This record gives sequence, C-alpha cells and structure tokens, in this order.
Amino acid sequence: MITIAVIGAGAVGSYYGALLARAGHDVRFLLRRDLETVHKDGLRIHSPQGDFHLPTVTAYASPAEIGPVDWVICSLKATALDSARDLIAPCLGPETKVVALMNGYGLERQFAEWFGPERVFGAMAFVCINRGDPGVVHHLDYGRVSIGHVQDDPGKLEKLHALFASSGIDVVSAPNLLYARWEKLGWNIPFNGLSVAAGGLGTATILADPLLRATAERAMREVVAAGNADLAASGSDTRLDIEEIVERLFALTATMGEYRTSMVIDYLSGRELEVEAILREPSHRAAILGVSVPTIDALYALVRAAEFRRRGLITPLTP
Amino acid sequence: MITIAVIGAGAVGSYYGALLARAGHDVRFLLRRDLETVHKDGLRIHSPQGDFHLPTVTAYASPAEIGPVDWVICSLKATALDSARDLIAPCLGPETKVVALMNGYGLERQFAEWFGPERVFGAMAFVCINRGDPGVVHHLDYGRVSIGHVQDDPGKLEKLHALFASSGIDVVSAPNLLYARWEKLGWNIPFNGLSVAAGGLGTATILADPLLRATAERAMREVVAAGNADLAASGSDTRLDIEEIVERLFALTATMGEYRTSMVIDYLSGRELEVEAILREPSHRAAILGVSVPTIDALYALVRAAEFRRRGLITPLTP
Repeated sequence: MITIAVIGAGAVGSYYGALLARAGHDVRFLLRRDLETVHKDGLRIHSPQGDFHLPTVTAYASPAEIGPVDWVICSLKATALDSARDLIAPCLGPETKVVALMNGYGLERQFAEWFGPERVFGAMAFVCINRGDPGVVHHLDYGRVSIGHVQDDPGKLEKLHALFASSGIDVVSAPNLLYARWEKLGWNIPFNGLSVAAGGLGTATILADPLLRATAERAMREVVAAGNADLAASGSDTRLDIEEIVERLFALTATMGEYRTSMVIDYLSGRELEVEAILREPSHRAAILGVSVPTIDALYALVRAAEFRRRGLITPLTP
Repeated sequence: MITIAVIGAGAVGSYYGALLARAGHDVRFLLRRDLETVHKDGLRIHSPQGDFHLPTVTAYASPAEIGPVDWVICSLKATALDSARDLIAPCLGPETKVVALMNGYGLERQFAEWFGPERVFGAMAFVCINRGDPGVVHHLDYGRVSIGHVQDDPGKLEKLHALFASSGIDVVSAPNLLYARWEKLGWNIPFNGLSVAAGGLGTATILADPLLRATAERAMREVVAAGNADLAASGSDTRLDIEEIVERLFALTATMGEYRTSMVIDYLSGRELEVEAILREPSHRAAILGVSVPTIDALYALVRAAEFRRRGLITPLTP
C-alpha cells in the first residue's frame, strides 16, 4: 500500500488527498484547525463530479506522528514556505518523494536545496475550489493537475503520473516543470493580481470591463515573455505559445462565472496573501532575465499596497 | 481696466482670480455653491505667502450676467468640459482671449475648435491648494503657472504673461504648449493615478513605499516618452529631458509632505474624478503614437475601476 502525507490541508490538499484516500491509498493528513472535526466526522467533498464522504480519515496534529511515507504532498500556502522544511522532514525516508502542490515561482528550487533535487516534484492544480465549514470542501469545477520533476526525469515523473491517474485525478505530465509553472502563472498573475488590485472583484467582473480585461491580457503576455526567456536561459527548447495561451486561458476564464481567485478569498477573509510567490518572485526573475514586465510590476505594487493597508503598514487618507 | 471672467471657481480658479482681483483688475466670478457666502463675506485666501481677504467680490450665477470680457479664465473641472462651451460663450467679445487653466490633455484643441485657435491659451498650475468652507481657499505651497498659446504665438503669450506677472503670480511662458501639458502630466499621471489606485494615499506614503515609488517613476518615464513622441509628431524640436524631469519632480514631491492630489480629494469626497483628462486621453494619444505605456494603462484601468465601484457600475465581492 502506498503511503502519502498531505502537509497543509487547505482546500486543494484536502480535495486531492481525499481523492487519493478514496482510491485506497494510505493518506495521512496534517491538520490544525479542522483536526477534531475531521476525526469525528471525516471529510466531505461537494463536487459536480459527485459528492463523496470519507467517514474515517487518518489525521494528525504533528508530522512526527505521520512518520516516513512514500510520497509527501505539500499543499501549504506559499506564505508558509518557511515552515515547510520542518513540517516535511519528519515524513522523509530514504526513498520518499516530495510534491510541491503549491502556487508560485521557485518553490521547487527551495525544496531541492533542502531535500535533494532527485526526489522533488512540482504540481499545479487548475481547479476552482473553496473551503467550507471544517472538514468540508466545495469543488466547483475543473481539477486538472499538471506535474513535473525538478530534473525533468521522465521515469520518476511517470510514477507520480500513475499515482494520480489511478486515483481518478485528471493529470498531465508537463513537457518540463518550468514550462508548467509559467503556464500556471499566466493565469494566476493577471487574475489573482487584478482581483485584489481592483478592490475585490470576481473573474466575470474583470472580463466584463474592457480596461481590466485588457490589463489582464497585457499581464498574461508579459508572463509568457518572461517564461520563454526563463526557458531559454534554462537551456530548454520548449516555448510557451503566447497566442494559444491567451486564447485558451481567456476562454477558460469565461466559463468560470464570477469565480473568486484564491488571492481575493484571502484578501476578503483577512488572511495573508501569496504576493511573494505569485507576483514578487516572477517579477524578480523577469528583471534578472532583462524582460520588461511593467503590468506585473504595477499589480505587484498595488496588491502589496492593498495588503499593507489592511495590516496597518501603510495608512490611507481619511476623508 | 482689464476685465476677467473666472469660469469655474474651485480652489484653483478662486485663488488665481483673487490674486488678479487684488491687483486691481475687474474680476467677475461665476459661482454656484458659494455665491451667497461670497456676496456676503467675500473671498478669503489662507496662504504661507500671507493671508488676504477680498471683502467685495463681483460674482454671478450665470455667464450672461458677466457679459463680454477681455480674458476668460476657465478653471472648470475637466469632467465639466462638455458644459464649458455654453458657460464661456456669453463672455466672448470679438477680442476676448480664453485661458484653459485646467488639468488634462487635449483641452485646448477642443477650445480652439469652439472659439478659434488664435484666442486660446493653456495654463498649468503647479500649486498645492484645497477648498475650505464656502468662500475660503487654503493655499498650501507653490503656485507657479506655466502658460502657452495654442499656436505658440509669442506676441499673444506675452500679453497673458504680463497680466499674470503684474498680479504677483509666478508665471513661466512654456517653450510650447504641448511641452507644458506633458510636463504637467508627468506629475499628474503617476501621483493622481497612484493616490487613487492604491486605495486613497497621500504623496509621502507613495514615496515611502519602494514599490509604489518605482511604479510612479515608471509611469513618469512613460509620460515623458509619449510626450516626446507627441512633440516630434507636432513638428516641434523641443523635447522633455527625462532624467531632469524625474529628478526634479521627485525632489519636488518629497517637499510636499502627505499631500492630497486633486484626484484623491475627489475620490475621498465622492466627487467625479478627472480620469478622462488625466489618464484616458494621454493613454489614447500614446496608443495613436505607437508608444507603449503599460503602467499608465494599468493606472487608468484601476482608477476607473475604483470610480466604477463607487458609482455601483461594477460590483465588488462581499466576504
């Protein structure tokens, strides 16, 4: 039996962990807020693909209780990256693989430094999902997971692909990890960025406003340009097709309705925003690569200003 | 005696009109909100250069009562441009000159179309100023007025220069009007734009935040690039010196303290913003000239979104 630790069981970790558990794998969740409820009532997933309930869920309050496993799936918020090392380490045996199922640029490099590159994978979930009450996840739509290995080892990647596919997860092996990261950022930067910078908007409102929509497209094109420069710098021949990405991601977003990005959910509920992972790191990488990304930079500055206002680090004027 | 009509007596119109009246000119104000108070108590100017009080002020509720004058100074908000023609026309005689003492790009072209180019001037006030109670203006700092003639006629410009200078106004004749407009936009676009887009901030707060400051500088550089392309397209040899402008305007802004831009004052008090004049028109002109101004475009989209949110034209998410 394959053993899996899910570190950071927010909406994404709970959902995919539940799919893996439903498929019969030995999934052990690290929980904090929901631990008691999940011990008592299990995990409930509401989904257009069929609701399901796991009445008995293995969950712990500390990674030491989980112990070494075959796979660690780390789905912490990017803002908790600093704590990831200590949370993951107790779950590592000599052969344990680590999957960063998280938002943002550069995570896997950090993981590779800590744990060795041969065992580190990245995973990007294209999924519309929210947390409900403790122990409840609302899966709204989509669910595809794009995966890559830090060293782009196809043999290693095949194992993760098989694990996800056997659990009914729509999984795609990316041509390479860097490509997959930038493709995901192609959606995250414009829509997470604008949803907060424009004052708390859903995606349908952004698309319906011609100026905001044009701003989203400019940001998306800047992401692709930076991504292609990054791919070139890494020695890869793979490139993102800018027109294909713009057309596909806008068409996809148009089917989402008034979707709340993860960043706007954090913003509205007073939680820390993933500004560094989604905006700062790509902006810095673009600067190092010599790619001009003024729209991304403006979104970065304004999203951070929004967070700083809320935290009282900058003070707005009073009427 | 020189007769002057001041159309649109907000802070700027009231202040410069009061200086002209104090110098002994026959100044006739068109007032709405403050008419009764000003008839009764006159105009009071609080200024670090010395407070003064005009106990008797000539003021009317309609331009027909003002009648034809030598000079019309139009200091309406740019959002009231559509009403300017009807408000100015009754004050025009065959020799009347019209000065657009207003924010924004392209105003004089509109005035020239209506009234003939030979009599139209533009004026840009670099002044920190707010309205107080009815009939009261708070002049905080600066006050220089940069002037130009639509056809860049030096003889005509000299007459306006003499009028302002003789009234104690710090006046500078710009090398040409287009140059002066873009120079003013070099401050207005970054600081008016960010003050609202970043959620209602004063200039010191913008300068103190490295990311917002960098965004302001990028916007300023885009303005200068668009301005220089516009000057070239107009056949002028004059150019804006980008490094000189960035250095001078940031140094100037640093002396202003937590200054409230006119746009943030409008934003905080629920009045219409000068989005079109300060952001849309320059952005459109840059697009026509083929100059990329992504930071300006992002500020335009986000300031308009802020105004649309307030007017209920776009609906933010609720937590």
